[in-house]
Amino acid sequence: MIKLYGYFRSSAAFRVRIALNLKGLDYDTELVNLSTGDHLSDDFRRINPQGRVPALVVDGTVLLQSLAIMEYLEETHPAPAFLPDGAEARARVRAITNIIACDIHPLNNLAILNYLSGALSASDEQKATWYRHRVTEGFNAVEPLLAESGDTGKFCHGDMPGLADICLVPQVFNAQRFNCDLSSYPTIERVFKACMEMEAFDAAQPANQPEAAGIA
Amino acid sequence: MIKLYGYFRSSAAFRVRIALNLKGLDYDTELVNLSTGDHLSDDFRRINPQGRVPALVVDGTVLLQSLAIMEYLEETHPAPAFLPDGAEARARVRAITNIIACDIHPLNNLAILNYLSGALSASDEQKATWYRHRVTEGFNAVEPLLAESGDTGKFCHGDMPGLADICLVPQVFNAQRFNCDLSSYPTIERVFKACMEMEAFDAAQPANQPEAAGIA
Repeated sequence: MIKLYGYFRSSAAFRVRIALNLKGLDYDTELVNLSTGDHLSDDFRRINPQGRVPALVVDGTVLLQSLAIMEYLEETHPAPAFLPDGAEARARVRAITNIIACDIHPLNNLAILNYLSGALSASDEQKATWYRHRVTEGFNAVEPLLAESGDTGKFCHGDMPGLADICLVPQVFNAQRFNCDLSSYPTIERVFKACMEMEAFDAAQPANQPEAAGIA
Repeated sequence: MIKLYGYFRSSAAFRVRIALNLKGLDYDTELVNLSTGDHLSDDFRRINPQGRVPALVVDGTVLLQSLAIMEYLEETHPAPAFLPDGAEARARVRAITNIIACDIHPLNNLAILNYLSGALSASDEQKATWYRHRVTEGFNAVEPLLAESGDTGKFCHGDMPGLADICLVPQVFNAQRFNCDLSSYPTIERVFKACMEMEAFDAAQPANQPEAAGIA
């Protein structure tokens, strides 16, 4: 029995939805509405003291942090694999994963953007510039790592989607939402399109979550 | 033959120094002076297109991103282990690791603090508040995850240091440098002290790197 505490627009919850779909695991969703502050309630903090989604509950055990959850799913349900064979290849996939998950995404989440406009009085234009700067810096590294490596296939590593693809797709969605120009990243765009042709990715996208209809 | 591209003050390079020491691996250091912009040179970008330290070169293969490097070291040199046995226990360690490595550290690195004072005209006080806010939010989650779990031992998980400790120690160093009050985090402080009694951690600290003497 798997329960995902999530929210349609959370990139980190989006990752876990893709991961569960790729592994073929059924799950129930418990909506944590970030727009109304559900994540900051005492009830939710008892599940996750960090007050963030996703949290995944598997047979009563609470798992936190999307990357840790994906590694857990990989260890407990090895097929289909999110990581290739060989330590060097796995390090390559995890490096691309971490550029996105450590160096782009946490700087661009809703709480940070709100902090910029609040405590630092940033204008909408300054926030948009901040956002795009983070995406540009990260994708400027990801693009050559993909384009210049013979390990890149239909997906970030070979011809099966893995950890890096699972992080890349929500980041591209998010960047599109903030009107980032991605035309300098043809390999990222190509991999993104290949992912979105798969049901596991498409079903996980924000617009396809039930709460998307009712929340602005 | 292992070469670490690093810098004494980089928390991410500090992690890799600890990891190499714990695994008992000899390495050479190639200084990348962040204060003079070495990391942004074309030469270094050919090694790491992201222009960041650490990069680890193992027998000619370049490995990027500190977490990916530590997972690589764990896979190629399993003893002593950075991760416990059991998928749930491993997920716990990786969750604590990622709270620090994704949700605290990337928001507080030098490039971000410089961006705040530059593009966003943040005052020194606003930067300090930003910094402490990030540490507080993250440590407010890490502390109960440690204090309220029977899995916590002398270290973050049991009585051997692992991935979470390797990330925690540089974060505490960094927080102290920015005068964060850590008295609300007794378990974090206890684990930090236990780590710093170990030669592997102490030898890796910024002040014990050769370049520390010559750089402001």
